[in-house]
Amino acid sequence: MEQFIRVDMTTQQVTSGPLPEKYVGLGGRALTSNFVNDEVKPTCHALGKNNKLIFAPGLLSGTSAPNSGRLSVGAKSPLTGTIKECNTGGLFSQKMAKMGIKAFVVEGKPADDKFYIIKIDMNGVSIEEAPESILGGCGNYEAIQILNEKYGAKVGIALAGPAGEHRLPSANISFKDPESNIRSAGRGGLGAVMGSKNVKAIIIDDAGAKPVPVADPEKFRAAAKIFARALLDHPVAGQGLAAYGTDVLVNILNEAGGLPAHNFTAGRIDYNDNFSGETMNALITERGGDGKVSHGCHPGCIIRCSQWYPDKKGKYITSGFEYETVWGLGADAGIKDFDAIAYIDRAMDDVGVDSIEIAVAVATAMEGGLIPWGDGEGVLQIVKDMAKPTPLARIIAGGCAIVGKLCGLYRVPVVKDQAIPAYDPRAVKGIGLTYATTPMGADHTAGYCISGNILKVGADIDPLKKDGQIEYARAMQIGTAAVDSTGMCLFVYFGIADNPGGYQALIDMINAQYGLELTAEDVDKLGESVLKVERDFNKRAGFTNAHDRLPEFMEYEPIEPHNVVWDFTPEEIDEVYNF
Amino acid sequence: MEQFIRVDMTTQQVTSGPLPEKYVGLGGRALTSNFVNDEVKPTCHALGKNNKLIFAPGLLSGTSAPNSGRLSVGAKSPLTGTIKECNTGGLFSQKMAKMGIKAFVVEGKPADDKFYIIKIDMNGVSIEEAPESILGGCGNYEAIQILNEKYGAKVGIALAGPAGEHRLPSANISFKDPESNIRSAGRGGLGAVMGSKNVKAIIIDDAGAKPVPVADPEKFRAAAKIFARALLDHPVAGQGLAAYGTDVLVNILNEAGGLPAHNFTAGRIDYNDNFSGETMNALITERGGDGKVSHGCHPGCIIRCSQWYPDKKGKYITSGFEYETVWGLGADAGIKDFDAIAYIDRAMDDVGVDSIEIAVAVATAMEGGLIPWGDGEGVLQIVKDMAKPTPLARIIAGGCAIVGKLCGLYRVPVVKDQAIPAYDPRAVKGIGLTYATTPMGADHTAGYCISGNILKVGADIDPLKKDGQIEYARAMQIGTAAVDSTGMCLFVYFGIADNPGGYQALIDMINAQYGLELTAEDVDKLGESVLKVERDFNKRAGFTNAHDRLPEFMEYEPIEPHNVVWDFTPEEIDEVYNF
Repeated sequence: MEQFIRVDMTTQQVTSGPLPEKYVGLGGRALTSNFVNDEVKPTCHALGKNNKLIFAPGLLSGTSAPNSGRLSVGAKSPLTGTIKECNTGGLFSQKMAKMGIKAFVVEGKPADDKFYIIKIDMNGVSIEEAPESILGGCGNYEAIQILNEKYGAKVGIALAGPAGEHRLPSANISFKDPESNIRSAGRGGLGAVMGSKNVKAIIIDDAGAKPVPVADPEKFRAAAKIFARALLDHPVAGQGLAAYGTDVLVNILNEAGGLPAHNFTAGRIDYNDNFSGETMNALITERGGDGKVSHGCHPGCIIRCSQWYPDKKGKYITSGFEYETVWGLGADAGIKDFDAIAYIDRAMDDVGVDSIEIAVAVATAMEGGLIPWGDGEGVLQIVKDMAKPTPLARIIAGGCAIVGKLCGLYRVPVVKDQAIPAYDPRAVKGIGLTYATTPMGADHTAGYCISGNILKVGADIDPLKKDGQIEYARAMQIGTAAVDSTGMCLFVYFGIADNPGGYQALIDMINAQYGLELTAEDVDKLGESVLKVERDFNKRAGFTNAHDRLPEFMEYEPIEPHNVVWDFTPEEIDEVYNF
Repeated sequence: MEQFIRVDMTTQQVTSGPLPEKYVGLGGRALTSNFVNDEVKPTCHALGKNNKLIFAPGLLSGTSAPNSGRLSVGAKSPLTGTIKECNTGGLFSQKMAKMGIKAFVVEGKPADDKFYIIKIDMNGVSIEEAPESILGGCGNYEAIQILNEKYGAKVGIALAGPAGEHRLPSANISFKDPESNIRSAGRGGLGAVMGSKNVKAIIIDDAGAKPVPVADPEKFRAAAKIFARALLDHPVAGQGLAAYGTDVLVNILNEAGGLPAHNFTAGRIDYNDNFSGETMNALITERGGDGKVSHGCHPGCIIRCSQWYPDKKGKYITSGFEYETVWGLGADAGIKDFDAIAYIDRAMDDVGVDSIEIAVAVATAMEGGLIPWGDGEGVLQIVKDMAKPTPLARIIAGGCAIVGKLCGLYRVPVVKDQAIPAYDPRAVKGIGLTYATTPMGADHTAGYCISGNILKVGADIDPLKKDGQIEYARAMQIGTAAVDSTGMCLFVYFGIADNPGGYQALIDMINAQYGLELTAEDVDKLGESVLKVERDFNKRAGFTNAHDRLPEFMEYEPIEPHNVVWDFTPEEIDEVYNF
């Protein structure tokens, strides 16, 4: 296969060739963000013909490096209007890498309103009409079964779910995972971009592909071993996440007073035990869970944070059941029943919407009187309705910023129109700087300052104080931009943050694969360059420092139990990107 | 009364005093925009406690100058996020001026959710709880009757209608007019700002007020006479508008191929006779209309553009029934029945929403499949539902930009999230430059280039060509900003554009009133300074030249019958504000 593939949906023409010279050496987020900045007109309409959607595996994807199977997806976001990179598990990244594909671009827009499937295999790329059976409200779980039957159980699948077909602002791109369940390129509405190009699914079949070439296999194996050890030996990456999933954070953030509750009017709840990680673990163990407990979102994952959450009879409900989702529905929207939350999570995966955006939008809609507080059944129905959207389902799928406008609220927890996730920035100030300044809109994964503020991994900073936070948020965003370019799962950070040997092993793997001599400084420079490219796009799209601000209410509404407000000045916030 | 009054709704404290020194000599838009730029934090939430709502009569308001009774209302807009000045007819401006009030400010936000009435009379300002009878869905027509009974038939009334109570983004502020019908400070959601401060109504009672002092009454009378003559002698200002209302433009724009139809996919329709100004005139004449035909929106209006539109039995349906509303519902949304359009117009006034924003949102929602094309009955119900908003009513009241997002459309006719009105910028290029660059978001009244492009008043510029448009759009915006500061109705422009004596008479009236020696150059400087102040606010709120762009689809979707696209380059557009 060629390294660089474009499908123009206006003409249905496929062009391919080697990776353009300027992108050689880039992967994942570095590649998608550079491409979007180079080729997408920043002021274009995100759902118009001039937006482009790019998929790129990371630099290490497809190799035997543990946890290197994350895929980056890039475009201009219809939710935020900014540049967007989402990364996700699933099967795409490693298959693309093995097929030698560095990036795959979907551009243009058909004149008709038919939906298509793009199929990529070692013979090339073909476009066919999507079967009626997977359209018009068919859920992602069922669509994957239908496509597995049609294309073979081993293929990789990317789907614009029902929400993506309707181009709703919180539509994600759903990816089939190793168990034929669902992983999501979740944030910023990239599923709506896929839907706007009338692409229902992309199938990737790597049958006949060869292993990824590695320049120095011996050096690579040695480094991979050290790297794996670093992950497995760490209490968070090696044990905590596998046992409790990310949901382990419910009790931790609640204890820290940084668990936003009741649409960000409190920082602690008293029913945290209802859906804490410890409770999840106990329930999964007790209910049996088809014999499964935790697993990885892609082959080669050794952290296995994804919990396999079953119903009372032990039958699978959902997986990839993240802390942020549980927090949003449980603490922020007051849905106290864990199973109800699980069914909503499943429904969100099934229609293909960002579970953070929806959960926060739901809580805001509860404040706005559109949904009763804590009404799990009501929310489940609304999410299901997103498949054939009712007006209310559209409103919620429009995301938190739109809910805030349609309910006339001032307490609207968004930055750049993207919902603020599960960590209150008043009580955990480092993450607030990430929310405010990342080019992505509010996004904890863009610089996970929870690590040094709360978990005390990689740093030890008082979450309630401003000291050291600016430098820390800057460093975390730079490091994350680099990690997002490798195809590595972000959680590898826990294993290498306090382990210089583990970090060096990561760099050694890249060097061994490509025959390079990169240093830690080079990696930082890569991260910095990615952020600068992303800021450049945003600037040309009309964003300024005035958009790098948290919602104003956080400046004057203190949050319990610490009774703190957001008190970074504009000038201090702007220092984060002073590099 | 004191000249400058503030009501803090947080504390219910009233403070008043002389007009601050820096605002002396300013009125109307010059005063509201300077105040908002000085006192409102540009990045504040428009519905939060830090936004401020200011009402100011124009420099000539309250005098015997014809057509000088327009009121300016300013705040940060919840629809656009920009600074906003809306002006309106009604009774407020002249009463405020006679009472000596240069400006009235509402700030803060109550902690409770009760609604209040602010009453201003010669004894001072009082705040009382609003009676239940005018809350919870009571329409503006009924509320005016109730308040007339309570406070006397002669008082002026400003209302946050049901939509304003719900703080919906297209909520306007409704003003009682001389016939106790409704005039609106329509665009940009200022009714939501009033609602966010829990102010249901403002009552102004000028009983006991003295005439506005005039420094040189003789000179004033002489100038006013010349000015009145200029208006009455002009075929548009003196005859056309009184006979046909602004709806006279249906046939004119249709003929010009600039009447946007079917959500901006065509520029001409074949059913224009259904609701043209000529048809309106014939219907009003035939039906009787309570003996009324056209009238003014405020005392002292001699243009009388407002048509009194009756039903088949001659009973009043609506007035202030503007071309832009008729166009939006008739041509853009395809509602072919004129009476249906009139009932929707009445319903919009009754719930208190901007008829342009709603009409365009409706057409966009039709393209998005939310409402059948041309369904007048359906639209009437949706507008009525805005009083106790259903989800669909909220979506439409959210305005065109939100409808576009929730329907996943790229053809969304907005600038800075405000709907583009009734003149297609591809076929009338001058007005496109105003839409793109005015600090207000798409707004034809900010620089009505239709005048020189189509009506050939004041200039003669080919609407399909770029030549001369940049300079023209600049001059029109500067002149408008000045006129909006005088309290004059914009339509006086028609009378003075080609009549230097009429223009001089306008300046002479100001000079005679205040004992000044202003020149035409000074007036231009005033206009320029207002625009600069407004741009400064927007810049600090995060707006850049990248926001001064028309919707992208207009660049690549040609419009029939002239088959033209929007072809000004970004650099050319940016020249408009190069002064």
